[in-house]
Amino acid sequence: MKSHAFGIDLGGTTAKIGLFTVQGALLDKWEVATDTSNEGIAILPNLAASVKAKMAEHELENEHVIGVGIGVPGPVMHESYVPRCANLGGWGDLDVSATLSGLLNGIPVKTGNDANLAALGEYWMGSAKEFDSVTLVTLGTGVGGGIIINGKVLAGANGAGGEIGHITVNEAERNPCGCGKKGCLEQYSSATGVVRGMNRLLAEFSEDCVLRDKDFVAKDVFDAAKAGDRLALICVDDMAEYLGQALSDISATVDPAVFLLGGGVSKAGEFLQEVVTAKYKRHAFPATENTKILLATLGNDAGIYGAVKLVIE
Amino acid sequence: MKSHAFGIDLGGTTAKIGLFTVQGALLDKWEVATDTSNEGIAILPNLAASVKAKMAEHELENEHVIGVGIGVPGPVMHESYVPRCANLGGWGDLDVSATLSGLLNGIPVKTGNDANLAALGEYWMGSAKEFDSVTLVTLGTGVGGGIIINGKVLAGANGAGGEIGHITVNEAERNPCGCGKKGCLEQYSSATGVVRGMNRLLAEFSEDCVLRDKDFVAKDVFDAAKAGDRLALICVDDMAEYLGQALSDISATVDPAVFLLGGGVSKAGEFLQEVVTAKYKRHAFPATENTKILLATLGNDAGIYGAVKLVIE
Repeated sequence: MKSHAFGIDLGGTTAKIGLFTVQGALLDKWEVATDTSNEGIAILPNLAASVKAKMAEHELENEHVIGVGIGVPGPVMHESYVPRCANLGGWGDLDVSATLSGLLNGIPVKTGNDANLAALGEYWMGSAKEFDSVTLVTLGTGVGGGIIINGKVLAGANGAGGEIGHITVNEAERNPCGCGKKGCLEQYSSATGVVRGMNRLLAEFSEDCVLRDKDFVAKDVFDAAKAGDRLALICVDDMAEYLGQALSDISATVDPAVFLLGGGVSKAGEFLQEVVTAKYKRHAFPATENTKILLATLGNDAGIYGAVKLVIE
Repeated sequence: MKSHAFGIDLGGTTAKIGLFTVQGALLDKWEVATDTSNEGIAILPNLAASVKAKMAEHELENEHVIGVGIGVPGPVMHESYVPRCANLGGWGDLDVSATLSGLLNGIPVKTGNDANLAALGEYWMGSAKEFDSVTLVTLGTGVGGGIIINGKVLAGANGAGGEIGHITVNEAERNPCGCGKKGCLEQYSSATGVVRGMNRLLAEFSEDCVLRDKDFVAKDVFDAAKAGDRLALICVDDMAEYLGQALSDISATVDPAVFLLGGGVSKAGEFLQEVVTAKYKRHAFPATENTKILLATLGNDAGIYGAVKLVIE
C-alpha cells in the first residue's frame, strides 16, 4: 500500500526534507547539510541515506513509498536531467531522478526546479489553493519565479520557464545583472536590488535618512519606509514600480489567475502587497488589471510541498 | 462514423471556413461575409447555415461530423463564453459554443481566441510541427500572439494569454496605445507602428529617403530597407529591437521551444527574421538565447487549422 511520499528541497547550504502522507499531510520535516565539496559528489548519497533512515524510523518499506520529489536550484529538463549548478559547487550534469532512484532501490523519483516547485506547493496547499493558475514571484537575494497552469509546472523548453527575474524592465541600466544582461527585474526588486537602490538614493540626495551611514539590509529599508522615511519610501516605490511593470508583462503573456509574492523581501507583508498592487494596476493590460496579488503563505516549506506533489497522484 | 470536422475563423469582414477530415486534411475552404449589423445578431445563424449547406453538398449527416471549432477576435472563457467584441459591432456576451451547437442540431462546438488558434494551427500543421511548444507573434495592424504548451492553448484566466502586443517595451513613450497603456510592443512592431516610426524618422531627419512625401505602408518601409535606404533601415532596426526585447521577456516567462513570426508584416520574410533573431540574441536570458525564430507558414489558413484542432482527437 502506497501510503507515504518524500519531498526534498535541495539548497546550497542545507536540504529540507519532508515526509508526507499521500494525501499531502506533512508528518515530519528535517534538514541535511549540503556537502558541495568534490563537485557535490556526496549530495545524492547523503539525501538517500537520510530518506532511508527516516523510513526505518517510521517502519516504512519501499512498497509504502509512492515516490520522492526533489527540487534543485537550477534548470531541470524532462523532470530528471540537471545541468551543472554553479551554486552547488559544480554539482550536476546528471540524471538526478534516475540516480537518486537507484540509490533508493528503485523508489520513483521526479525532479523539478526549486522556484517552480515552490509555486506548485503554494498552488496545492498554500495561498493559491483556490485558483486554477498562479505565478509565484520569489523576492530573495535574487528574483525567482514559478508558473503553474492547470496544475502543471511551466518548465520551459530550456528549463527557463518562470525565470522572471530576468524580464527587462529598464532599458537605460548601465550595470550588468548577474546573468550578463542589463536592466533585469532582479537588479531592482531583489533584496540586493533594494539595498543597491537605497545606496544610490543616499548618494544622490543629501537629506536626512535613518539609514544614512548605517549598514543595512532590505528589511531595514522597508521598516524605514513604513516609519515614513522619505528616501526609503522612494526606494520602495521604485522597486514596486519595476515589479508592477514585470507582473503586467507576465499577465499579457500567461495571464495567471493570481500572483503570489514570496521570499525574504515579501516579509514586508501587506505594506509591500499594497504598493505593488497599485503599481501593477497602473501598468496592466485592461482585461488583467484586477488580477489579485497575494502573499505566499507556506514560507520555507513551499519547496517540499511542491516537490512531493510531483510524485502524488 | 465521425469522419469530418469544420474549422471557422471569424473575422470582422469575413469568416473563413474549412471542411477537414478527422485526420486533418483540408478538403474544402470558403468564406462567408460577417454581418455586423444589429450587434451581429445574424453572425452565428449565417455560419450555421453555411456549414449545413456544405454538409448537404458533401452528403454529410450530423453523425459524420465530430465537431466544429471556431476562432473569434476577442477573449474566450472556458472554450465557450465570448464577452462583447468591439471589432464585431458589439457582438458577443454569449456562449458561442452552446449557441452554435444549438443552431447545428447538437454538433459539438468549441471556441477559442483567433490568435491563439492560429498558434495551435501552426503547432499542429505548420512550421512549429517539430516542436513541443511555440509562441506565435502575429504582426498585423496590431500585434497579437498565441502560446501553445504541450499541445494546449494558454488561454489565460481572463482570456488574455498571449496578448503579447501589450508587453511594455518603452517606458518613455508619451502616446497611448489603443489599450490605454503607453509603450506597448504593438505601438512599434505592428504594421501601424512601423508606419508611425517611419513618419517620425522622416520628421526628425532631413536626409533623402525614397519614402519622403509619399503615402506608404509597412511593406514599403521593408522594401526600402532591403534596398538600403538608411532611414528605412533605422526604422526596421527599431521595430526589431522592441520585438527582440519582448521575445526575450517571453522566453524568461514561458521559454517556448520556438517563436514564429506571422501576420502581414512577416511577409518581409528572411530579412525580418534575421534582424529580429540578432536583436533577440542580444536581449535573451543566456539559457534561451538559441531559441529559433521562424516564419509562420500557414498564412491565412492557420486560424481554420487551429479551430478544427479544438475538436479533433
